[in-house]
Amino acid sequence: MAGRLAGKRIAIIATDGVEQAELTEPRKAVTDEGAVADLISVSGGSIQAMNGDIHPADTFEVDKLASAVQAQDYDALLLPGGTVSADRLRMDEDVVAFVRQIVATGKPVGVICHGPWALVEADVVRGRTLTSYPSIRTDITNAGGTVVDEEVVIDQGIVSSRNPDDLPAFCATIVEEFAKGQDAGAIG
Amino acid sequence: MAGRLAGKRIAIIATDGVEQAELTEPRKAVTDEGAVADLISVSGGSIQAMNGDIHPADTFEVDKLASAVQAQDYDALLLPGGTVSADRLRMDEDVVAFVRQIVATGKPVGVICHGPWALVEADVVRGRTLTSYPSIRTDITNAGGTVVDEEVVIDQGIVSSRNPDDLPAFCATIVEEFAKGQDAGAIG
Repeated sequence: MAGRLAGKRIAIIATDGVEQAELTEPRKAVTDEGAVADLISVSGGSIQAMNGDIHPADTFEVDKLASAVQAQDYDALLLPGGTVSADRLRMDEDVVAFVRQIVATGKPVGVICHGPWALVEADVVRGRTLTSYPSIRTDITNAGGTVVDEEVVIDQGIVSSRNPDDLPAFCATIVEEFAKGQDAGAIG
Repeated sequence: MAGRLAGKRIAIIATDGVEQAELTEPRKAVTDEGAVADLISVSGGSIQAMNGDIHPADTFEVDKLASAVQAQDYDALLLPGGTVSADRLRMDEDVVAFVRQIVATGKPVGVICHGPWALVEADVVRGRTLTSYPSIRTDITNAGGTVVDEEVVIDQGIVSSRNPDDLPAFCATIVEEFAKGQDAGAIG
């Protein structure tokens, strides 16, 4: 029996410093439902994941380069956290352009922990409500977004959560929103 | 012969994830000139420094807790980078209050790399010009600051640099500004 995300292609964007559980658990959630998930990064080879930001964990093979993908080839976007990964991604012009295009076309986004920095850099939090890791809430607010402290928030196609403890609720919600597809952005 | 910073007490605020060279080199620069430098952190024991953000380096003993120090007891403030350290510091109310008080009293500040996030959190970059690591420039701009891309910038008592490559110029400049003392803030 096909999963709820059969036929969908999900872009997961991360680099060195990604928080391991925030990469592996959402990826498993969407692939278990039949989606194809590509790990997209800013350079080839593999990326170094971390536990708790400072303890090196496993490495993960990069599927595609950000410079070689188009938003039109994906149905949804997943932005894991990890302070260093999220910090580095926002400096990559291809990543920021990809994020901006996904949001502009109303495709659903799942973002957790420090992941929203890429949204800040793409200037797409303005007028939206989301949650995040506490450290970056001032940055989101200063970028025109509204921040709330909840386990999972859905607003205009963007699903957000705060930290790894929220992963069960986050994973369940991204599956639902990604299954709705592009309309999710329009129906809020 | 007494150094140029003899009799001065410098607060260095950092936590796990501090970029090692950005802690050790400025600390050596100010103590070589006769200052006493306290490593202040958000919890006791020692902190884990990193090289290049994701490679664990040495540990450093914490001298004082942020909750137990007063800005009035220090002559200047040094904020090293390291993505994870800078990210964590801004969540600590004692750190943010300390930073705000140092700036409000016109005492000189040296800040490098990701260090300015604490200044963003304390809302003291508004109307000031500084430089930083590229990833956080949008956050500084959104907080009302002006960002330039220079090796070292001095504005209203705040000395800023971009990354570890700038350390020679940064260290020389903080010694000069810290030697001028509280007036540095007033004379710009």
